[in-house]
Amino acid sequence: MRLGTLAIVGVGLIGGSIGKAAKQRGLVERIVGVEPDPDSALWAVENRVLDAVAAEVPAEADLIALCVPSDLVAQWVITLADHPATIFDVGSVKSPIIKEIEVTHTPPPRFVPCHPISGSEKSGPQAADGDLFDGCTVVLTPLANTASAAQQACASFWEALGASLVSMTADEHDAALAVTSHLPHLLAFAFMGQVTDQHLPLTGGGFRDFSRIAAANPELWWRIMQLNQGALSQALEDYSNNLRALAAAIESGDESQGLALIEAAAQKRRAADATAQ
Amino acid sequence: MRLGTLAIVGVGLIGGSIGKAAKQRGLVERIVGVEPDPDSALWAVENRVLDAVAAEVPAEADLIALCVPSDLVAQWVITLADHPATIFDVGSVKSPIIKEIEVTHTPPPRFVPCHPISGSEKSGPQAADGDLFDGCTVVLTPLANTASAAQQACASFWEALGASLVSMTADEHDAALAVTSHLPHLLAFAFMGQVTDQHLPLTGGGFRDFSRIAAANPELWWRIMQLNQGALSQALEDYSNNLRALAAAIESGDESQGLALIEAAAQKRRAADATAQ
Repeated sequence: MRLGTLAIVGVGLIGGSIGKAAKQRGLVERIVGVEPDPDSALWAVENRVLDAVAAEVPAEADLIALCVPSDLVAQWVITLADHPATIFDVGSVKSPIIKEIEVTHTPPPRFVPCHPISGSEKSGPQAADGDLFDGCTVVLTPLANTASAAQQACASFWEALGASLVSMTADEHDAALAVTSHLPHLLAFAFMGQVTDQHLPLTGGGFRDFSRIAAANPELWWRIMQLNQGALSQALEDYSNNLRALAAAIESGDESQGLALIEAAAQKRRAADATAQ
Repeated sequence: MRLGTLAIVGVGLIGGSIGKAAKQRGLVERIVGVEPDPDSALWAVENRVLDAVAAEVPAEADLIALCVPSDLVAQWVITLADHPATIFDVGSVKSPIIKEIEVTHTPPPRFVPCHPISGSEKSGPQAADGDLFDGCTVVLTPLANTASAAQQACASFWEALGASLVSMTADEHDAALAVTSHLPHLLAFAFMGQVTDQHLPLTGGGFRDFSRIAAANPELWWRIMQLNQGALSQALEDYSNNLRALAAAIESGDESQGLALIEAAAQKRRAADATAQ
């Protein structure tokens, strides 16, 4: 595939990585960024992630990547409702974005809600990585009225960046990601609450890996957890039940119950690695 | 330093890594392993991690590394009470081992309780790594009657393997490790309870890192959590309070409270990385 103009709204880690990846693979003739932060915008142009910066999405854009935080996506989709290009976002929650649009508008048929499951605890275009989407899963949550040509355009773009595609409803996406991503962040943030400076020399690789996501961007994650609050609360309730059962087995010394829970966990986690390979 | 005979009791990941590391660095003339599992013993000899396997710790051993699971250490220390060599263990809990010895014996002055904070979700001598202790912290929890010559011998040995040493009481160790290691394992095991096969394609690097420790050896971790149950229960109670506070802020939309908790967590986690470098 080869596009004319790609517009990237929001040139942070994800927007910057999309720009780099598209350039590296020669997918576009020109990339125009819309980025309110002057440092990020300047950095992205100077480092050739973008060809130009503009205050608005140019009329000639062929594909528009909305890489703003999830709670700003709906307003951008509404603003761009009459733009002829295919539009996708990269938000970590999907249903709240669609519902916010639907309060006042019919979602444009050229808007394809997307979520690349990549990310990092880093942020900003300086952390952008042209291979970020290589081997990653991108979830598409098209609506009943989403144009199939727009879905196809997004699918081709992501595949050209090396991603695998999965389609599901927005609600299915939000329930699953509450478990696989939002809950672990919540648990890791809470965990760091009891860690002190005196603990730090007494940490190993397990601690570092387990808590790495607690270094993520706080504002971004506050917004994600607010937006997906319903699914996240359900995931947390399920978690609390599992945690209570395991803690009770440990406290009562119920080896058959405790060991069974731990063995099931270990087996599933090993299977996850096997799946990833 | 250069020792004559090093005896390693229990040739799994840690015992095997001690053997490999000591060989690589030329610290010992001879390594004798005591390992009940014939496959592990054979593998370790064939791969030159050990020079020989014996049914008992040889009388001529100059240093004895007890690399058996924590709940078997006390019995080995009692068995070796009259051996003239310095003895150390590598258990993840310290106070329960010492208390178990004290039920019937005065702990031998040549026994130095040690804990290398290394480990891995892998196990067995096949996973042994001669650089496992390079840059890792080893905690020594000497008793009032521990001979200073024995402490010095252990300290020199670990330092020669590349480790940094920290001394504290057994209770201090157990309380700290309950937070930095045992609690994360408990939380990660509980987390995997709600992960299904359908979730696996929808996972990214955050999920993988957060849950990696859930793939650890179930029996080993059941024993550790049983032995350190008191400190672990306290750590879990503190955790539950922090989790409830953050969940309440998310559910009520209390941004100033929620964001403050997440920002404090992120700042501490970033500081941990800075400390490690």
